[in-house]
Amino acid sequence: MTAQPDHPDAKAGHTLISVDAMGGDEGPAAVVAGCALSAQANPDIGFILHGPQEQLDPLIAKHRELAGRCDVHHATEVVTMDDKPSQVVRTGKNTSMWSAIESVRSGEAAVAVSCGNTGALMAMSMIRLRKLPGVNRPAIAVLYPSSNPQGFNVMLDVGADVRADADDLLRFALMGTSYARNGMDLQRPRVGLLNVGTEEHKGRTELKEAYDLIRAQGESTGFDFVGFVEGGDISGNRADVIVTDGFTGNVAIKTGEGTASMIGNRLREAFKYSPLSRLASLLAYTSLRRLSKKIDPRRVNGGVFLGLNGTVVKSHGSADATGISAAIKLAAQLSENKFNDKLAARVAATLPAEESPS
Amino acid sequence: MTAQPDHPDAKAGHTLISVDAMGGDEGPAAVVAGCALSAQANPDIGFILHGPQEQLDPLIAKHRELAGRCDVHHATEVVTMDDKPSQVVRTGKNTSMWSAIESVRSGEAAVAVSCGNTGALMAMSMIRLRKLPGVNRPAIAVLYPSSNPQGFNVMLDVGADVRADADDLLRFALMGTSYARNGMDLQRPRVGLLNVGTEEHKGRTELKEAYDLIRAQGESTGFDFVGFVEGGDISGNRADVIVTDGFTGNVAIKTGEGTASMIGNRLREAFKYSPLSRLASLLAYTSLRRLSKKIDPRRVNGGVFLGLNGTVVKSHGSADATGISAAIKLAAQLSENKFNDKLAARVAATLPAEESPS
Repeated sequence: MTAQPDHPDAKAGHTLISVDAMGGDEGPAAVVAGCALSAQANPDIGFILHGPQEQLDPLIAKHRELAGRCDVHHATEVVTMDDKPSQVVRTGKNTSMWSAIESVRSGEAAVAVSCGNTGALMAMSMIRLRKLPGVNRPAIAVLYPSSNPQGFNVMLDVGADVRADADDLLRFALMGTSYARNGMDLQRPRVGLLNVGTEEHKGRTELKEAYDLIRAQGESTGFDFVGFVEGGDISGNRADVIVTDGFTGNVAIKTGEGTASMIGNRLREAFKYSPLSRLASLLAYTSLRRLSKKIDPRRVNGGVFLGLNGTVVKSHGSADATGISAAIKLAAQLSENKFNDKLAARVAATLPAEESPS
Repeated sequence: MTAQPDHPDAKAGHTLISVDAMGGDEGPAAVVAGCALSAQANPDIGFILHGPQEQLDPLIAKHRELAGRCDVHHATEVVTMDDKPSQVVRTGKNTSMWSAIESVRSGEAAVAVSCGNTGALMAMSMIRLRKLPGVNRPAIAVLYPSSNPQGFNVMLDVGADVRADADDLLRFALMGTSYARNGMDLQRPRVGLLNVGTEEHKGRTELKEAYDLIRAQGESTGFDFVGFVEGGDISGNRADVIVTDGFTGNVAIKTGEGTASMIGNRLREAFKYSPLSRLASLLAYTSLRRLSKKIDPRRVNGGVFLGLNGTVVKSHGSADATGISAAIKLAAQLSENKFNDKLAARVAATLPAEESPS
């Protein structure tokens, strides 16, 4: 690394990631450790870390990899998990979360990462970054482990808003397509609309309307619309992008994560059950470790806010260093691909802006 | 068994289960084999099997356990998975599904079991059995593997209707409580309302209204209302009964099942990976088998229609003999407990009937 300690952003070609160091369940030490992991893996990235300078400096000093690659933006306050979003957008100016978003707003960084309160992060991002022209409801997209060739499906919305009408669902399809292309290198993603059955006559009215809108758009916009999909297809191979409203999507991914973690716990119990099974777990150690890496939610940790003037990656509140570093890796890839410009162009090209962005 | 071959229902104390032998993906042979498994496990039950007599008689004859314990009600037609519910209720009089429901309607059997088309089964059950007084929307309840002491949560609605208002959700809480008591012997179930966050200010408006209604009722009706729960709690230990609308519930359980089956597939791959891991899978065979039994969806296969004059158990379309027999076991338990009378009494006692049943 040749970047100068005081001006990491001065280096040409450097990808700067704005990182909210506070607000995660594991504290700033885990966040800084996650940055260090990412720094090791990717020599082209630098960081702007947001939080109390006196707390962050000693943590950064512990990691050799971070020397000369971190700027700290001092912020004294922290958004907690209990803070109400409506409150935080009024009184949160001195928080590390606000500061992290400001670095994207000012153009210093293209992407911000935070593992704080999702509702607050979304509300703050909406107000400070504002919606892209043509987008009425932004969405949170996640990567969900699946039996796809690429190993993951993009799913959105998983909780930005509890509602979505047919127009919103169409925009989710466009934004999800853009994300699959830039975040996962899929040139022609298959898009599915989540419903309770795959037959056209099933489900809620707004879904039938969205079905027609998305089908009409797919032909001209370079994705394959596979029609209605069901809950089982979220981890399956029928689609690459799963479109749904934020209520259903949120319940679905939390159900899936909960089920996976219950199975993991029972698997551990099963392997402790007898001397024979304990021996077996030793023999299978490498294979099981490989499996657990594949389906570890921490590795697909980055939820991404789509539809704003700037990209914000939400990491799990309980993310440890591995989780944080997965979120940063995603942030770096999206930043390097100039993802948000492409997404904005796609939405603008396809849809006449029905309202000016607010 | 001392029941006479021609009149199994004549035996005092005999629990008769009405079984639709047709319409499952695995065909009538799997259904009859499931009945045989149940007959072996429970000497007190007998069956009324519905389907083409000439197909069923030879299948029944293959199973010694069924001798003298099966009546066949001849039905020539079959409801397929592609049939529209609205069509079937008009033209389905000669189907095995219709016939199976008729046996409950006439009082010959207290519970019917079918693994056919869910929508058609629900529509037919609604029209022939009619709703209980005080119930506006019937619901489908399933048992979902969880880290509860009893190993399962009751979840409803998982797909009877795509909508539910606050009043419906309250009735789901009451019906779910009744089911947990009679199907799982839980005297004071904990009831949770599914939402995207556990804070009271989150989620859709009808959920806040339902929150207040259920909380007010819980104090007088003998369940503990634990408030809002999230997707992760469906497989967790915060509640015993999870209340939600049929759209969300359907997506959630299919997401969970899909995720579990993806993990199972990857686990099998992991164990095939190297000679060492293949040896390990041999050593761990018994433990893994025990685990897979615990979380096997076929063992908790019975979805139950609640809120009708009579109980209908829906088995998975793809259920094999093990799955069918789990559904029959549940049907027998509910029948022996006079579950439906108790549920009706509970709903009637708690709520003034706002409309006459239709």
